[in-house]
Amino acid sequence: METTTRLLLPEVVEALETDPSQLLSLTGELHPADLADMAQALDTELRLRLFTILPADLCADILEHCDEEKRTEIFVPLVSSAPSTALAIIDTMAADDRVDMLAELSQEMRRKVLAGLDDDEAKDIRQLLAYKESSAGALMTTDFVALSADTTCEGAIEEIRVIAQEMETIYQAYAVDPNSTLLGVISLRDLVTSPKSATLAEIMNPNIITTTATDDQEEVVRLIAKYDLLALPVVDSNHRIVGIITVDDAIDVVEEEATEDVQKLGAIDPLDASYLATPILDLIRARLPWLVVLFLAVLATPFVLERYTQMHPAAIMLSWFVPLIISSGGNSGTQSASLIIRALALGKISPAHTQKVLWREMRVGLALGIALACVGVAAVMAREATRIGGLALTIACALVAVVTVGALLGSGVPLLLQRLGIDPAVSSTPFIASIVDVTGLVIYFEIANIFLV
Amino acid sequence: METTTRLLLPEVVEALETDPSQLLSLTGELHPADLADMAQALDTELRLRLFTILPADLCADILEHCDEEKRTEIFVPLVSSAPSTALAIIDTMAADDRVDMLAELSQEMRRKVLAGLDDDEAKDIRQLLAYKESSAGALMTTDFVALSADTTCEGAIEEIRVIAQEMETIYQAYAVDPNSTLLGVISLRDLVTSPKSATLAEIMNPNIITTTATDDQEEVVRLIAKYDLLALPVVDSNHRIVGIITVDDAIDVVEEEATEDVQKLGAIDPLDASYLATPILDLIRARLPWLVVLFLAVLATPFVLERYTQMHPAAIMLSWFVPLIISSGGNSGTQSASLIIRALALGKISPAHTQKVLWREMRVGLALGIALACVGVAAVMAREATRIGGLALTIACALVAVVTVGALLGSGVPLLLQRLGIDPAVSSTPFIASIVDVTGLVIYFEIANIFLV
Repeated sequence: METTTRLLLPEVVEALETDPSQLLSLTGELHPADLADMAQALDTELRLRLFTILPADLCADILEHCDEEKRTEIFVPLVSSAPSTALAIIDTMAADDRVDMLAELSQEMRRKVLAGLDDDEAKDIRQLLAYKESSAGALMTTDFVALSADTTCEGAIEEIRVIAQEMETIYQAYAVDPNSTLLGVISLRDLVTSPKSATLAEIMNPNIITTTATDDQEEVVRLIAKYDLLALPVVDSNHRIVGIITVDDAIDVVEEEATEDVQKLGAIDPLDASYLATPILDLIRARLPWLVVLFLAVLATPFVLERYTQMHPAAIMLSWFVPLIISSGGNSGTQSASLIIRALALGKISPAHTQKVLWREMRVGLALGIALACVGVAAVMAREATRIGGLALTIACALVAVVTVGALLGSGVPLLLQRLGIDPAVSSTPFIASIVDVTGLVIYFEIANIFLV
Repeated sequence: METTTRLLLPEVVEALETDPSQLLSLTGELHPADLADMAQALDTELRLRLFTILPADLCADILEHCDEEKRTEIFVPLVSSAPSTALAIIDTMAADDRVDMLAELSQEMRRKVLAGLDDDEAKDIRQLLAYKESSAGALMTTDFVALSADTTCEGAIEEIRVIAQEMETIYQAYAVDPNSTLLGVISLRDLVTSPKSATLAEIMNPNIITTTATDDQEEVVRLIAKYDLLALPVVDSNHRIVGIITVDDAIDVVEEEATEDVQKLGAIDPLDASYLATPILDLIRARLPWLVVLFLAVLATPFVLERYTQMHPAAIMLSWFVPLIISSGGNSGTQSASLIIRALALGKISPAHTQKVLWREMRVGLALGIALACVGVAAVMAREATRIGGLALTIACALVAVVTVGALLGSGVPLLLQRLGIDPAVSSTPFIASIVDVTGLVIYFEIANIFLV
């Protein structure tokens, strides 16, 4: 919350409690995004009062700026206690935002809301509701400027002037034929700078970057970021324009996808809501399966340790260094996996680079392992003056091998998963670390068998 | 690279080698972003030829769409072999992109380029070059539409029409007084939909979201994302407008910051370039210091193990389960740290929530620990039929304790660092795992001392 908003909050609360007529003058200078912060900080009753006092179009703006989970929390009591206000707000909300909100409601409540709307609006909402979450269709809005290709620039500006209020953006207009087939894109910049009598067909750009409603939102964001678009048109199989996705929604998706990637890397199923808004039970559900999988992955370690320590004369002393050795391998693997998984997510590398990547990682791993071995030997020498030869040599060689293997597994596993068509982010960094743990133990004791018998 | 681009590449190579006159018709329908993909795939000589054949403004567009590291790689030979072409390109490039590019050049080469430009342009570039990397100043462009507040809408559209070509965006115009003091913002949407005779002062929005040139780019992105801005004005201490930052640059920053966060979480110093473009030596430099720090962090483990195993009758058997116990704690800590560090980065939680977060994490940790203990006991019972009581009990209790402590440390350490003003992402997930390793060992053996003596 911005400082101004926080400072105004007590006054707004007082106005809501005692003198609602003061409210408009207090909130008049705040941006809807700041009003959204404020609304989210109020308790349910005051919040309801706020939404019934403010005009419906401002309420719609505020809801559009609320977190997704809060939006539903605000809207549900509004439907029950002030249904006509709720309908008026839905009516003026942007097509994409209201669909997101309605998708969260219970089926019964949704039916109730849809029944209260115009047939056209209800139909539009039902169509958008049908698209899969995280698809271009779920992200798009149907409020875009489509104009006949034979319109003149002057005529187009006149048309836009009339419909501007209802449009998500007017900075991109789309030239279409009578069947809504997309012919070209025209920016408001082109319209303003071209001769007034030129037709859209003459000035439009016919090489249009488009997406289809079933495409994934990651692809949408990639296109918007790559081509610096303000809006990306969504077309059906007949190249008819069915909606557009605007750049402000793309930014939200980039942040959302980055959050998902970080959570997957940390071995957590992506949360639907923000951390504090997620119920404890959902947090457990997102974490427990991974924790069990990782536990099972290292369940081999007791067997490995039992086998080696029963055979080995220096078993006890060797076991002291187990955490040091395997955590170094795990850390190296985590580093590689973080680099590779992110580079894959950004499309900077692909499985076609596997050989190149493994060759790099081998050299990096060897260099890191040798450097770490020097630190390790110094540390061992400082405390284990006796039997220094064999133990120091074992630890040095094990560190070099384990760090290198960590780098190779950390880069190789994500690349392999990507090649198999599995999201490489499921090879979370703890998962890589677990594989390296088991491998590292075997390496460590096999090396000990060479130097310490 | 898009499929069309890849398919056209061989033809372009052939045209460059044999018949450059064909080039324009081949590349005519490609977006500059696709031409940038193509240019980056060519070898140095053909690429040079491409940049000398294509018109300078298209070359500028292409460079703006290249990766930052490639941009310099392309531009440097151009300055040497075709200085006049290089100057013509610099002249038409967007103010923010050309400064990014010039910042990468050697001082001598930069001086040479600046000497070849108009005095005004050179001065503008020198000023922008002075801003710190990752600051709003380094991100902004000085090509924005500033208009006197007493201009009419009709007059404003006329003025914009004339200067549109040179502007980064014309969708936001800024009303200023004769000293360049920022008075209000007007969107092209407002200009087009308002009465032609209205003045900017009448229709402008005087509540402007602004930033200063020294603000961090994270703050810039936060404002653009929060307020759904197409451009954010940058003002100096006298509220004079000095530049604007456009939404397409903000998307790039969001991706860049997310990449940095993932790398920091993986215990890597953020790379300047993409993975494949980073020299091996830089990769080692970004990884080694962290690997050593993490190694030193777990250097306590041999001491802890030595102390406990020398005292304990069941030492060897206990040591078999060390990796299992500490990795479970580390995984739980990694999960918590991933959630908390990302939530802190997005501003969804702050150190003020510490108590609330720790209370949640304690309950989540306990639940996860108990669930994992059940799995663990089942696994131990399956293989260690003898002495089952004490060992199973030790492992169960240790798992509950270690997983809970992992969750508490994983959430508490990032919050503490944030409170101390240190970037919480430096408490990378391996770092948390290392702390939990050491703590986990002590907990495990202390519990063993209770149940297994």
